[in-house]
Amino acid sequence: MEQRACRPGDDRVTGDGWLLEGVDVRRVWAALAGRVRPAVFVRSERLEREVGADVTLVLEVHQRTGSFKYRAALGAALFARGRRLVTASSGNFGAALALAASEAGLPCMVVMPAASARVKIDAVRSLGATVDLVDTAVVSRAERLAQLSLADPAAEAISPYDDPRVVAGNATLGSELFEGEDRFDCVLAPIGGGGLASGIVLARDLLGARAAVVGAEPLLANDAARSLREGRLCANPCEPPTLCDGARTPSLGRLNYAILSRGLEGIVEAEEATVERAVRLLFTAANVKAEPTGALALAALLQDPGRFPSRRIACIVSGGNVDPALLCRIVGG
Amino acid sequence: MEQRACRPGDDRVTGDGWLLEGVDVRRVWAALAGRVRPAVFVRSERLEREVGADVTLVLEVHQRTGSFKYRAALGAALFARGRRLVTASSGNFGAALALAASEAGLPCMVVMPAASARVKIDAVRSLGATVDLVDTAVVSRAERLAQLSLADPAAEAISPYDDPRVVAGNATLGSELFEGEDRFDCVLAPIGGGGLASGIVLARDLLGARAAVVGAEPLLANDAARSLREGRLCANPCEPPTLCDGARTPSLGRLNYAILSRGLEGIVEAEEATVERAVRLLFTAANVKAEPTGALALAALLQDPGRFPSRRIACIVSGGNVDPALLCRIVGG
Repeated sequence: MEQRACRPGDDRVTGDGWLLEGVDVRRVWAALAGRVRPAVFVRSERLEREVGADVTLVLEVHQRTGSFKYRAALGAALFARGRRLVTASSGNFGAALALAASEAGLPCMVVMPAASARVKIDAVRSLGATVDLVDTAVVSRAERLAQLSLADPAAEAISPYDDPRVVAGNATLGSELFEGEDRFDCVLAPIGGGGLASGIVLARDLLGARAAVVGAEPLLANDAARSLREGRLCANPCEPPTLCDGARTPSLGRLNYAILSRGLEGIVEAEEATVERAVRLLFTAANVKAEPTGALALAALLQDPGRFPSRRIACIVSGGNVDPALLCRIVGG
Repeated sequence: MEQRACRPGDDRVTGDGWLLEGVDVRRVWAALAGRVRPAVFVRSERLEREVGADVTLVLEVHQRTGSFKYRAALGAALFARGRRLVTASSGNFGAALALAASEAGLPCMVVMPAASARVKIDAVRSLGATVDLVDTAVVSRAERLAQLSLADPAAEAISPYDDPRVVAGNATLGSELFEGEDRFDCVLAPIGGGGLASGIVLARDLLGARAAVVGAEPLLANDAARSLREGRLCANPCEPPTLCDGARTPSLGRLNYAILSRGLEGIVEAEEATVERAVRLLFTAANVKAEPTGALALAALLQDPGRFPSRRIACIVSGGNVDPALLCRIVGG
């Protein structure tokens, strides 16, 4: 398996092995140590029986702010170049950056659509950030972000995925998977902008582990799968109507594409019904509350079971922040 | 805090410190090591902010069969005296004993009300046990158990709580709480028959830890609280209509009462609305799927917050097997 995102001496992507676009991954890991919560590894015989595979669930649902995004956000906040942080996110990254900025002692503004659920807006505010509501019919969040950056040169706009500090932060999860004994043959990770999967690939290569990394993407938002097939960065024509809100990104980030196009074994495209089945299975068989994007990796396993024969699989459950009404519709409550 | 259930040399309850009614707790712990899953310790700032206390959640929702009962059942199964096991349970203990008996290579029969949910009956069967359905309007489960024991002298009836092997098995959770560094000032545990709480008290005393153990009981099923107040074993007049099905037991077990009446700091009686609030809080603030009985300990904290000032609290979430429809009603989905 010759899939190495960052061979020593390969400076196209990484400079040296531990330098990712000028960011020293070791320094990010050292700064995050003890500040991010370790993932929780759980098994469920009932789930394994149903999927017919050797599966360890790797839960990020108990990470601070309820998803892996806190790793990304803290990496960016602790190595910020601006005196203030700003990002556009109505989801997990907004809440994660709000908390991370507060930990780093930096003011933070999160641009959110005015139509966002009240509870999400309040959550970001309660974590100490200012919320900037935009009418997305009039101005896109990206445009608003550009306006804000222009108006305040000391504010740094943070991408939820296309940033070496974000990828290095996410790679701390990979370090938990790959450090120590050789436990897994294959790691399944969800793909939206590619921040998490590229962090896992990065950690694998830096630590010299041999596990394959396989991405999981909604079929309705399969820009990453198409990008890998076509050998160029493809985008979704419009916001994909997938249940997996974490995968409604326009395309992979540039840095993420560079890492994933060389380091990923492949991408499984999961149907919406399979995502729902995965949410349900996690809930009923493993007592895990996962959001749809968090269940994507398990959905990949359900979608293409023949792909994973007799492999020891780590299946990342990337977040648990799901609206109760949506979850209850899915689990049939 | 002079609360010791089992002082060395105190043979009323324990013979010597490590002997509980003839059962060597060390041997049970050694037999269960590596066969029960360690509890998962998680924290949630949002939950701690809402309850205003320093709380660590101790999750048994990922234990085998989804609740702490597997510790109890495996203790009984590995030290069984009969060639076959039989128990009466429509809940977690039935499923746990089915799996534990199968692990111990023993046939197992679970007596369940004929009106039990199909999914519960199928779950017990899928774990390898025979299910004996009784019409509880005609014959009680206890009567049926007595009939079965009479008909088959080689079958051993196992109590879900009033058994030293069960208490010793549950005490493995206590050993995880109290071994190593002194982390907790107070452990909150749900009380039904008293099997779990007495196991925690037993482990605390055997390991020489100093934490207080506080029980949590539904106000609607407060036989244990009344027993402690009146200094004698009290029973509920009929099956209490509490949401917490694990606490619908008629009374504490005899052995459990002996341990708890001397080793417990007290019992908090939680109202049903508080139990629902606890289930909701675990779900929304901590991404934890808990059954109502599993949320009892947190409910105690919500019910009587003034009782726990500036204490480091371990709050046991004893199980996660809740009917989706019930959970969704509670979380408002």
